[in-house]
Amino acid sequence: MRIAYDVMAGEFRRALLKYGMTPERAGLSAKLFADASLDGVYTHGLNRFPKFIKSVQQGCVDIQAVPVCTERAGALERWDGRKGPGNLNAYFCMEQAIRLARLHEIGCVALSNTNHWMRPGNYGLMAADHNCIGVLWTNTVPNMPAWGGKDPKLGNNPLVVAIPHKGGHILLDIAMSMFSYGKLESYARQKRELPVEGGFDRQGKPTRNPSEVLATHQPMPIGYWKGSGLSLALDLTAAVLANGRSSRKIGQLPHETELSQVFLAHGEQTARTIADTLADMEVSEPMQPGATVHYPGEGMRRTREDNRLHGIPVDESVWKAVQAL
Amino acid sequence: MRIAYDVMAGEFRRALLKYGMTPERAGLSAKLFADASLDGVYTHGLNRFPKFIKSVQQGCVDIQAVPVCTERAGALERWDGRKGPGNLNAYFCMEQAIRLARLHEIGCVALSNTNHWMRPGNYGLMAADHNCIGVLWTNTVPNMPAWGGKDPKLGNNPLVVAIPHKGGHILLDIAMSMFSYGKLESYARQKRELPVEGGFDRQGKPTRNPSEVLATHQPMPIGYWKGSGLSLALDLTAAVLANGRSSRKIGQLPHETELSQVFLAHGEQTARTIADTLADMEVSEPMQPGATVHYPGEGMRRTREDNRLHGIPVDESVWKAVQAL
Repeated sequence: MRIAYDVMAGEFRRALLKYGMTPERAGLSAKLFADASLDGVYTHGLNRFPKFIKSVQQGCVDIQAVPVCTERAGALERWDGRKGPGNLNAYFCMEQAIRLARLHEIGCVALSNTNHWMRPGNYGLMAADHNCIGVLWTNTVPNMPAWGGKDPKLGNNPLVVAIPHKGGHILLDIAMSMFSYGKLESYARQKRELPVEGGFDRQGKPTRNPSEVLATHQPMPIGYWKGSGLSLALDLTAAVLANGRSSRKIGQLPHETELSQVFLAHGEQTARTIADTLADMEVSEPMQPGATVHYPGEGMRRTREDNRLHGIPVDESVWKAVQAL
Repeated sequence: MRIAYDVMAGEFRRALLKYGMTPERAGLSAKLFADASLDGVYTHGLNRFPKFIKSVQQGCVDIQAVPVCTERAGALERWDGRKGPGNLNAYFCMEQAIRLARLHEIGCVALSNTNHWMRPGNYGLMAADHNCIGVLWTNTVPNMPAWGGKDPKLGNNPLVVAIPHKGGHILLDIAMSMFSYGKLESYARQKRELPVEGGFDRQGKPTRNPSEVLATHQPMPIGYWKGSGLSLALDLTAAVLANGRSSRKIGQLPHETELSQVFLAHGEQTARTIADTLADMEVSEPMQPGATVHYPGEGMRRTREDNRLHGIPVDESVWKAVQAL
């Protein structure tokens, strides 16, 4: 089943208004949810929407809260997200980072006390659309052991880097675990093996079985010990810069909320450097004969075009659930 | 064979003076080389020194060149490294980033036209010693295929994150390939298998055999496609911010030189957040019974203490080669 972008965004807007969001904010939030599905990030678009509404009902998300600035210091600003909707807070903070980058060539906004930002690529692409390099990351609830440990101590702390490019922006959007829990669940549902080792099984051995990883809650960090270290670095820099909660402190709350996030924008770019590098990558000798080498974000653009043209593929039950909200 | 730190640094200083470095700079450069060996990063301390002198003789490194500022814009400064010694240029730029962080809460120095920075952890630790978070990265000559390709298109682009901590700074120092060429060579010399898949063999299959990876020049990016994307992002952000050469353009030169690097310092920290997280990681249930979970930089501190006390372990032939310079 495929749903046209405008229909989907309209449905989100309707539900958000019903749950108390003001019209302008509901329009933007609906757009951000629909953009995620349009770009193929279904887990954080339509499929996440019912959970978002639930988090409003639970009181984790204050649907009317807007961020307040707690500190301005040159190119760095600290904002308190006041437990508002994570996607609107993130959108707002990326705007501020771009504004700061215009003034200082580099802008850094650190956001405390916010909620899940849904699909972070949206905010990276905002920066790139403004001809800025965008770098942003968040911490999460502890959901991954530190390297050598068994119990969750680190978040998977997604990191986004967006680099403006006329032929389509480069968009890197990666969690510090090899596969997000959403991806693991999707592989498990389809009874498919992971393409590489995605975590540890109940015997403590690396495994490609997604169900085992879901059972142990021991996903594999990217690059093994290196991803474990990166995750720690992202968590602490976010918590410290935002003067907000670390993953450890988030884990002490009943739900995943009060996250810390960082939004960096760099205001300059040299288009030729980027185009040259991408063109050179494209003429790689492929590992699989006949295949081509892509840059991060390239496949997303094709998905977006296809979904724009033919409607966004949806799980019918989720679509009906959203219509019933 | 073990050599006392002061003896080693003195030997470096002697050689640097002989090859035309001014006394003050020779003292600092010698310290930076010796610090690398002291901290256990032997590949970029003593063992790299003869190659550094060779690069001076080849004209890649202008031993007397000092960086010049080409652009000041708020919290961002661009410096031209003028092909000076990579470690002195990097040390200088980290100092400038810390200075900018004092003014703007965040400081970013982008350096073009520089040389290999030897052991980057040194500059990360400088930031942490000033109570700043330090983030720095460099591009390199293309030495790793893009994901899905066979020929080298990307650098392994080391990234360092240092976070101040009273009990010993957190220091993450990682290349975007699972193992550096130096590490691969060291495993190959010892005829040891890599602990995880470190690249592709001549049949295009992932392998733990270091000699195969050295033969194919196809090291494994950390986290597979994710590390490939990260490497691209680090290269392009460095080249764009520094207005310098990308990995692709560095690959067009006869030797690896004219690198682009970025030095970021964030001027604030909240000690408790960091200490709490590390303490919580340390009480992880270990994967291997009896083992303990460490943070990046923790092991280095023990090595440093041991090397300070008992001398720095050296390859006798390298030590003699340096004495003969």
